[in-house]
Amino acid sequence: MIRVAIVGGTGYTGVELLRLLASHPQAEVVAVTSRSEAGRRVDDMFPSLRGLVDLDYCDPASSPLGDCDMVFFATPNGTAMHQVGALLDGGSRVVDLAADFRLKDLDQWQHWYGMPHAAPALVEEAVYGLPELNRPAIREARLVANPGCYPTAVLLGFLPLLENDLVDAGSLIADAKSGVSGAGRKSALATQLCEAGDNFKAYSVAGHRHYAEIVQGLTSATGHDIGVTFVPHLVPMLRGIHATLYARLKRSDVDLQEVYERRYQEEPFVDVMPAGSHPDTRSVRGANVCRMAWHRPGGGDTVVVLSVEDNLVKGAAGQAVQNMNIMFGLDEGMGLASVALVP
Amino acid sequence: MIRVAIVGGTGYTGVELLRLLASHPQAEVVAVTSRSEAGRRVDDMFPSLRGLVDLDYCDPASSPLGDCDMVFFATPNGTAMHQVGALLDGGSRVVDLAADFRLKDLDQWQHWYGMPHAAPALVEEAVYGLPELNRPAIREARLVANPGCYPTAVLLGFLPLLENDLVDAGSLIADAKSGVSGAGRKSALATQLCEAGDNFKAYSVAGHRHYAEIVQGLTSATGHDIGVTFVPHLVPMLRGIHATLYARLKRSDVDLQEVYERRYQEEPFVDVMPAGSHPDTRSVRGANVCRMAWHRPGGGDTVVVLSVEDNLVKGAAGQAVQNMNIMFGLDEGMGLASVALVP
Amino acid sequence: MIRVAIVGGTGYTGVELLRLLASHPQAEVVAVTSRSEAGRRVDDMFPSLRGLVDLDYCDPASSPLGDCDMVFFATPNGTAMHQVGALLDGGSRVVDLAADFRLKDLDQWQHWYGMPHAAPALVEEAVYGLPELNRPAIREARLVANPGCYPTAVLLGFLPLLENDLVDAGSLIADAKSGVSGAGRKSALATQLCEAGDNFKAYSVAGHRHYAEIVQGLTSATGHDIGVTFVPHLVPMLRGIHATLYARLKRSDVDLQEVYERRYQEEPFVDVMPAGSHPDTRSVRGANVCRMAWHRPGGGDTVVVLSVEDNLVKGAAGQAVQNMNIMFGLDEGMGLASVALVP
Amino acid sequence: MIRVAIVGGTGYTGVELLRLLASHPQAEVVAVTSRSEAGRRVDDMFPSLRGLVDLDYCDPASSPLGDCDMVFFATPNGTAMHQVGALLDGGSRVVDLAADFRLKDLDQWQHWYGMPHAAPALVEEAVYGLPELNRPAIREARLVANPGCYPTAVLLGFLPLLENDLVDAGSLIADAKSGVSGAGRKSALATQLCEAGDNFKAYSVAGHRHYAEIVQGLTSATGHDIGVTFVPHLVPMLRGIHATLYARLKRSDVDLQEVYERRYQEEPFVDVMPAGSHPDTRSVRGANVCRMAWHRPGGGDTVVVLSVEDNLVKGAAGQAVQNMNIMFGLDEGMGLASVALVP
Repeated sequence: MIRVAIVGGTGYTGVELLRLLASHPQAEVVAVTSRSEAGRRVDDMFPSLRGLVDLDYCDPASSPLGDCDMVFFATPNGTAMHQVGALLDGGSRVVDLAADFRLKDLDQWQHWYGMPHAAPALVEEAVYGLPELNRPAIREARLVANPGCYPTAVLLGFLPLLENDLVDAGSLIADAKSGVSGAGRKSALATQLCEAGDNFKAYSVAGHRHYAEIVQGLTSATGHDIGVTFVPHLVPMLRGIHATLYARLKRSDVDLQEVYERRYQEEPFVDVMPAGSHPDTRSVRGANVCRMAWHRPGGGDTVVVLSVEDNLVKGAAGQAVQNMNIMFGLDEGMGLASVALVP
Repeated sequence: MIRVAIVGGTGYTGVELLRLLASHPQAEVVAVTSRSEAGRRVDDMFPSLRGLVDLDYCDPASSPLGDCDMVFFATPNGTAMHQVGALLDGGSRVVDLAADFRLKDLDQWQHWYGMPHAAPALVEEAVYGLPELNRPAIREARLVANPGCYPTAVLLGFLPLLENDLVDAGSLIADAKSGVSGAGRKSALATQLCEAGDNFKAYSVAGHRHYAEIVQGLTSATGHDIGVTFVPHLVPMLRGIHATLYARLKRSDVDLQEVYERRYQEEPFVDVMPAGSHPDTRSVRGANVCRMAWHRPGGGDTVVVLSVEDNLVKGAAGQAVQNMNIMFGLDEGMGLASVALVP
Repeated sequence: MIRVAIVGGTGYTGVELLRLLASHPQAEVVAVTSRSEAGRRVDDMFPSLRGLVDLDYCDPASSPLGDCDMVFFATPNGTAMHQVGALLDGGSRVVDLAADFRLKDLDQWQHWYGMPHAAPALVEEAVYGLPELNRPAIREARLVANPGCYPTAVLLGFLPLLENDLVDAGSLIADAKSGVSGAGRKSALATQLCEAGDNFKAYSVAGHRHYAEIVQGLTSATGHDIGVTFVPHLVPMLRGIHATLYARLKRSDVDLQEVYERRYQEEPFVDVMPAGSHPDTRSVRGANVCRMAWHRPGGGDTVVVLSVEDNLVKGAAGQAVQNMNIMFGLDEGMGLASVALVP
Repeated sequence: MIRVAIVGGTGYTGVELLRLLASHPQAEVVAVTSRSEAGRRVDDMFPSLRGLVDLDYCDPASSPLGDCDMVFFATPNGTAMHQVGALLDGGSRVVDLAADFRLKDLDQWQHWYGMPHAAPALVEEAVYGLPELNRPAIREARLVANPGCYPTAVLLGFLPLLENDLVDAGSLIADAKSGVSGAGRKSALATQLCEAGDNFKAYSVAGHRHYAEIVQGLTSATGHDIGVTFVPHLVPMLRGIHATLYARLKRSDVDLQEVYERRYQEEPFVDVMPAGSHPDTRSVRGANVCRMAWHRPGGGDTVVVLSVEDNLVKGAAGQAVQNMNIMFGLDEGMGLASVALVP
């Protein structure tokens, strides 16, 4: 049994980890930390976990993190980088669901996250935890940087095109739409029901943190310089990301369906639909799946890829559990069998 | 392995049965019927089931229902009553998720459902499938009438008060609110997003079919005449029922918390929260739980019970699987472990 | 032209006042105050007002409130009571949209609002601004306490029954449901889209501030002692209140439709629908109307009244403008012609 | 007073016309037709219009359309083309809110709408009713083809760039998102709350009818060949379109803000926000405005234009009233003063 701790268990990725791990046969959550809620029962805060999680939140300072085989950080950006080193030294393995170890370029990290990085050596060591790209390295990793929600959907959607050099890598467009849970569980005005409900808008068009992560991911996967325009939007729904990806084809003699199916034929959590399909976000609600389909409108040289995921599952907690399974040599799908909730 | 068939697998209760049974270790769905969709892959209609359900819809006429140990009817009212007899004769057992066998009084049935009943003897045989009330009979039943969604929440909320003769049984009020999936998966104007979204209304105040079922259930549980006013409302959300129940206490010297906890202490799928709690519907979204709490505002003689469930799970498909488990002597919770999806 | 100021113009009632007054032919908003946003253009915060409101927020301290004929307070509870006296002395008239002057009983006020009242004499002077109850007094008032959103819907729904002594005044039930804007425009966790969306719950069942206001209103209108159980719920929608009211009829020989129609025949902003109707909240979205219908389910002695309003219009800003019109001898409907937005 | 008839008054554009015309000082609706609802009061179907519209639906055959100065067709595609000729001959003027007269190329029309056109001569005569493009022709027109909702937002967003030859006209991308009311008021499965709610998807990526209209509009405005990829998506909200437009700049020495402001400085219903803004759909909810802002992410050569409108107002009924005002020489904004409803 893998002894698991969750650092920062009051947010949406935290409660989602608890939901998934509640049915994981080889992992047992032994500690969930929260500075502000220490001493409170977890299921008092989240009644959905009544009867399933019999734990109190514990203060990070007094929690038995060091005794755990696996520590998930579901903390705000800039937190894990101060604590991970000691845990790794003590023999724990770590998956960070925040952004602390995602960007290899420390200047970029400082630019986007507004602080100098506290653990540059660990940035170098950390493996970017997109299993479809880095499975062998994840298997050996002590420290995995769990990808962002947008980058997961965007990278998985673009990879087959770029790895096969089928499109102009300099003029990519990623028009992405996210449910509101992507903003996390916090009291912000912009994500109040009365502000975000029955409404639609773009945000951070001038620059969003995930832009750098997308560029890094696409560059490392292809070796080419990448030019991508990334525009995120806020959808009045709870969960789900829909990335609408546009690229200019360099060749028209390729069977794109075959390209996509071949790329992901061994992947348990990427689903390529028949060409011309319209995947919807609810088809992955609660499930650890990235589902996609491609189109060539009018038969022209623009390819449109539609890529959907649940931002809290394949875009966060589900992928984190998937990474843990890989790190510990378990069946990759363990604890990840929950079926999408429709309607 | 129990061989299972689902008759009428294109509605919300049908797809919910498929979701739950996909992770049931002792049941295998071998047939899903649909007159209109025969020949179409089930996961073409419900992409959420891709990789999980490898079946085509089959025509009821040519489907192997008779070979199945268990047949679920997820059909419109008035369908099952024509087909159940032959299946029972052939040795199958049946849970009907529609209303065909819920009302013992045939005149009442005809009044509310607008047609004479086609199988009166089966009405007599059928067991009303509320496990918390009829577990022993369900265990022996060939035919179980799965309760309606509103009655499940209302009965479970009122039972402790009435069984202990604590309230005036003649002046009960059940102010109930349901998500839109309670109306089923069909093209109706009133449940269009643009009609029901960002809107709230009562409906069928003059008389709703579940009224008769509530009266029957409360009467049979208590032996008393029951007077209840039942007002259903439509909530702009997908799933969930919230019943706000009002009753006049006849005694004030009773520890209501103890009454509720004692009544349900052995029940795996009823959760009594601490007194004064406010259960919300999302805490049971996707889970087979009826969660409740009681209040006495101002310490007066009116008791208010708040009872929530997912209308498609404890109010329909989950309860149906629970009934199947009881009928086949399995662990009652098999296949029902899915944790509520929050947010 | 009436010179109007709005104190506290960054909340939902503030922006709603601005929306309504933008088309009021006899009123001109000359100042909108906000401590936190002073100096910012109003239409920068609310782009919906671009081209319509050419004002900056001004600091309350330096704003020309004293020069205004009419001052609306759209501030948090406990603010207006410190400022109204001076304005009245200076000749301005005031409508307070908060609760400062609603409760005549100062102990009750302190109990529910958690602070001693700072201006008891003004409490005595203030007129409770429900035009359907107090029109003559409003006409003469210097200070009007604009009713709460719940009380408006509940009082208007119950008044015809109680004024005519048709029901048992000691066992009233008001099961009320509100859209999320009732909680105001602020960063609270409970009203985040991901907390309140696709969810339904009761709240404050043990006691809600509007309870005292409802009791006071019903008592003063009837002279009887009132017993009412008030249970508010949160609906995942932006605007709208639906009150489902239950009362026990003392006589069954009365034409209730005639009672309701007679009571409101001269009222421009109360609409009695045909008996048996189901008013929905969207039918008043954005409009200054309280719409209602009554039922007697099964012909029994329980009468059910369904009463809907837009909590920000007839439940707040619209009623405030209506009060201003009465106070200044204008046509009562001036500036209140906007038609409900459907869908 | 302009005598107005609405043909097909049971859909969302019909009821929206009624909402707007209820406050139009120079127009009086004298007839609203509906084959299916003839004889029913309009405000029985739409209680939001109680007290405002005192009309019964009348059968088209017996309605006094010929006596009207102005006839709006709010009918399904392919209806108006059979009736408009006689009305024009009788001296009425017509605005068609459907697609019958939008496409000048009859083959295109037949391709997209699946039937041969019944009135080719009227297609030639009809003026495409985008005031910002065709105001002088609209003024003289007998027959105006009211633009589609998507084309209005897309054309207004792209026009300043294309008219000034600032971008590569061959590689435009319009990623558009619409609220569900764009699908009209009808019982369709895909737009049920339980299908479209809490969900996001693209649709008709292979080809949408508005594609042809967008190409025609951009071509006629610029004289150039246009290459545009148009991908519509369905947003779980009632009203609103958000078009995210991408184009490749050919020159970087242009002040785009000045270009946009100059283009629309005289336009009462187009609002150019400060550069870098993020217009949201709610800021135009219920208002006859197209609001937009532009971005150049990273200072690169891709320009992103965000263009929002209410699909039922500036995208349908509001623009139709605007066209009527132009045709009759009235102030263009008459009846169009309603302020956006926020929240």
